[in-house]
Amino acid sequence: MLRPAELKENTMTTNMQVLLASRPTGAVSEENFRIVETALPEPADGQVLVRNDWLSLDPYMRGRMSDARSYAKSVDIGEVMVGGTAGEVVASRNAKFKTGDKVVGALGWQRYGLSDGVGLMKIESPVAPLPAYLGVLGMPGITAWIGLVDIGQPKAGETVVVSAASGAVGSVVGQIARLKGCRAVGIAGGAAKCRHVVEDLGFDACVDYKAGNLAGDLRAAVPKGIDVYFDNVGGEVLDAVLPNMNAFSRIPLCGLISQYSATEAYGVKQFRSFLVNRIRLQGFICFDRLDLWPQARQELGDWVAGGKIKYRESVASGIAAAPRAFIGLLKGENLGKQLVKLG
Amino acid sequence: MLRPAELKENTMTTNMQVLLASRPTGAVSEENFRIVETALPEPADGQVLVRNDWLSLDPYMRGRMSDARSYAKSVDIGEVMVGGTAGEVVASRNAKFKTGDKVVGALGWQRYGLSDGVGLMKIESPVAPLPAYLGVLGMPGITAWIGLVDIGQPKAGETVVVSAASGAVGSVVGQIARLKGCRAVGIAGGAAKCRHVVEDLGFDACVDYKAGNLAGDLRAAVPKGIDVYFDNVGGEVLDAVLPNMNAFSRIPLCGLISQYSATEAYGVKQFRSFLVNRIRLQGFICFDRLDLWPQARQELGDWVAGGKIKYRESVASGIAAAPRAFIGLLKGENLGKQLVKLG
Repeated sequence: MLRPAELKENTMTTNMQVLLASRPTGAVSEENFRIVETALPEPADGQVLVRNDWLSLDPYMRGRMSDARSYAKSVDIGEVMVGGTAGEVVASRNAKFKTGDKVVGALGWQRYGLSDGVGLMKIESPVAPLPAYLGVLGMPGITAWIGLVDIGQPKAGETVVVSAASGAVGSVVGQIARLKGCRAVGIAGGAAKCRHVVEDLGFDACVDYKAGNLAGDLRAAVPKGIDVYFDNVGGEVLDAVLPNMNAFSRIPLCGLISQYSATEAYGVKQFRSFLVNRIRLQGFICFDRLDLWPQARQELGDWVAGGKIKYRESVASGIAAAPRAFIGLLKGENLGKQLVKLG
Repeated sequence: MLRPAELKENTMTTNMQVLLASRPTGAVSEENFRIVETALPEPADGQVLVRNDWLSLDPYMRGRMSDARSYAKSVDIGEVMVGGTAGEVVASRNAKFKTGDKVVGALGWQRYGLSDGVGLMKIESPVAPLPAYLGVLGMPGITAWIGLVDIGQPKAGETVVVSAASGAVGSVVGQIARLKGCRAVGIAGGAAKCRHVVEDLGFDACVDYKAGNLAGDLRAAVPKGIDVYFDNVGGEVLDAVLPNMNAFSRIPLCGLISQYSATEAYGVKQFRSFLVNRIRLQGFICFDRLDLWPQARQELGDWVAGGKIKYRESVASGIAAAPRAFIGLLKGENLGKQLVKLG
C-alpha cells in the first residue's frame, strides 16, 4: 500500500485507484480509504479503456460504504469506490467508441477504467465543459429535475423550499423552481452559501440553518407556506419545515445527508403534519425514472446553454485528494458540485 | 348544567346535547364534556328536524376538541360536539325529505338536530341495518376504500398491513385487501382483537402489539415484506413497520391515534426507509376525494350485501354514555365500529 505522499502518477503505464479499506462507524475518515497503484488494465474484445479526468463526489457514496441494506449494493472492502467519472477513451475494442471520444460514465475512484460501453455516454455536441456533465447536466441535475418537476409538480405562484440549497442538486432545484414561476427558498449552512444562493443563483431567499433561529427564519421566508419541500437532508431541518407545509403539499425525498454519519437516527417529531396537511412524500433516486432522463437532459441542456441555469464547482486536485474532499462534502464544506480533477 | 345521573330523556319536547366543556390536555376525560337539556328546535323553511337514533364515535373527534391547527375547524367551547348520526326525519319543511325518512348525516352529539338537507343522505334501499351506514357503509368504510384502493394501489399477491385492524376502518381495509388477492396482516392490541381479525374477518395474520415482541412478530408475519401499510396509529408501531417496507411500497396515512393524546410528539426514527425503499406516503381524509364516494359506496354495498365484508359493532347505550365510550375508543377498548344508541 502506498501513502498519499509517496504517490506519483505514471501516466499510461499504471493505474491509481481509491479502494474502500474499512467501513466507517459514524463520521468517515481518511483511514477508511486506501490508495493503490495497479497495473493499467487492457481492454478485452468489446471493451474500451477510459482515462478518467474528472471524478464526481456525491453524498450517496456514504451509503455505499456501509453494509446497511439500501437501494444499491454496498462497495466491498478492497473494492474500488463507486463514482461518476468524465474522461476520454484511450483505447477501444468496441465499435461504438473510438480513441479520443469524450465520455461520461460511472467508472469509480480511479484514473483509468474499463467499460463494455453500457452506461457510458459519449458527449458529442457539448453545451458546457465536460465536468458539467457530472453536475448540472448529469446525475445531480437530472435528480433535481425528476424530484422537482415529476414528483414535486410545482405550479406557478407556489413556494418551493430546498435544503442543501448550494449543493449540486439543491442549486438546480431552486433555479428550476424560479423558471416554473415559483418562489424559491433555499436552506443552507452559513452566510456565504446563502449569499451565493440568492445573489448568484437567483433564489428569492435563503435561510442559514446555522444562524440559530431556523424555525423563525424559515417561517419569515415562506409567508404563504410551503407547497414543495425538496429534502436533501432530513433530521432537524425536516422537523423545522414540516409545520410550514401547506395542505396537499409535496415532499420529494432525495437524501438524508444529516443522517448519513449519525450513529443514532434522529426521530422526526412533526409527523402529524403529514396527516393534517395531507402531504405526499415520495422517496426517490434518479435511476427509478430512466424514462424521464432524455427530457430532463434536453431541458437542462437548453437552460444551461441559454444561461438560465448557473452552476458552481468545487474542485479538488489529484486522486489522492478525493478522500479528504469527500469528507468535506459530507460536512458541507463545498459550494456547488464537488469534483476531483484527476489529471 | 345537568349531571349525567340526573338526565331523563323527554322525547319530543326537549333535546339532549353533549357540548365541549373544555379542551383536554393529554388524555380526554369526562370533565371535558357537558351534557345539557335544551329546547327542541323547530325547523325553519327548507329545514328538517331529525331524531338521531345512532351516533358514530371516531378518533378524528379528538382533533376537533383541540385548538391546534388541523384540516377542520375546532369545536368551540360550549358548542355541540361534531359527529356522524343516523336517524329519522320527524318534521320536514324541505321538499326533498318527508317524515319517516331514514337519514344519515353529521348532526353531532345530540338527540335531535336540524338540517338544511346538505350532507343529509336518505337511505332508501338499505343493504344492512341503519347503523351500518355509520360504519362499513359510511365514512369509515369509505375511508378504508379510498386509502387502500386509490392511494395504496394494492396488486394481487402483495402484502397489505393495517394498524388498528379491528377498528371500523382497519377491519374493512384488511377485508378489501383479501378481496383484491393480497395477503392481509393486521396489527391490533390484545389476543381477543387479533383472534377476531383472523377468525371472524378472515385476515391472514394479526400481530398483537401488546404482546411485547412487535418487531419480531411483525417480521415473521410478512415473509415477503410489506407493499402497502395503511396507517391509523403512527408512533412506535410505524417505526416497527418501516424497516419491513418493500421497494416502491405505499403508506396511506389515515390517522395517528397513538399521538392524539400524547403531550410530547413521538419521533419517527426509521425515516431512512422512506428514501432507501422509495416509499410513497400520502396523508389523506375521505373528504378530499368526494369524487370517489359513489364508487366506494357501491362496491362496499355489494360486498356487504354479498356477505364478503363482515363488520362488528360496539354499542354504548344512551347519550350520557357517549363521553365514556369515546374515551374507551381512544384507549382501544372497542371492537369494530363504536356507536352510541341514542334512543
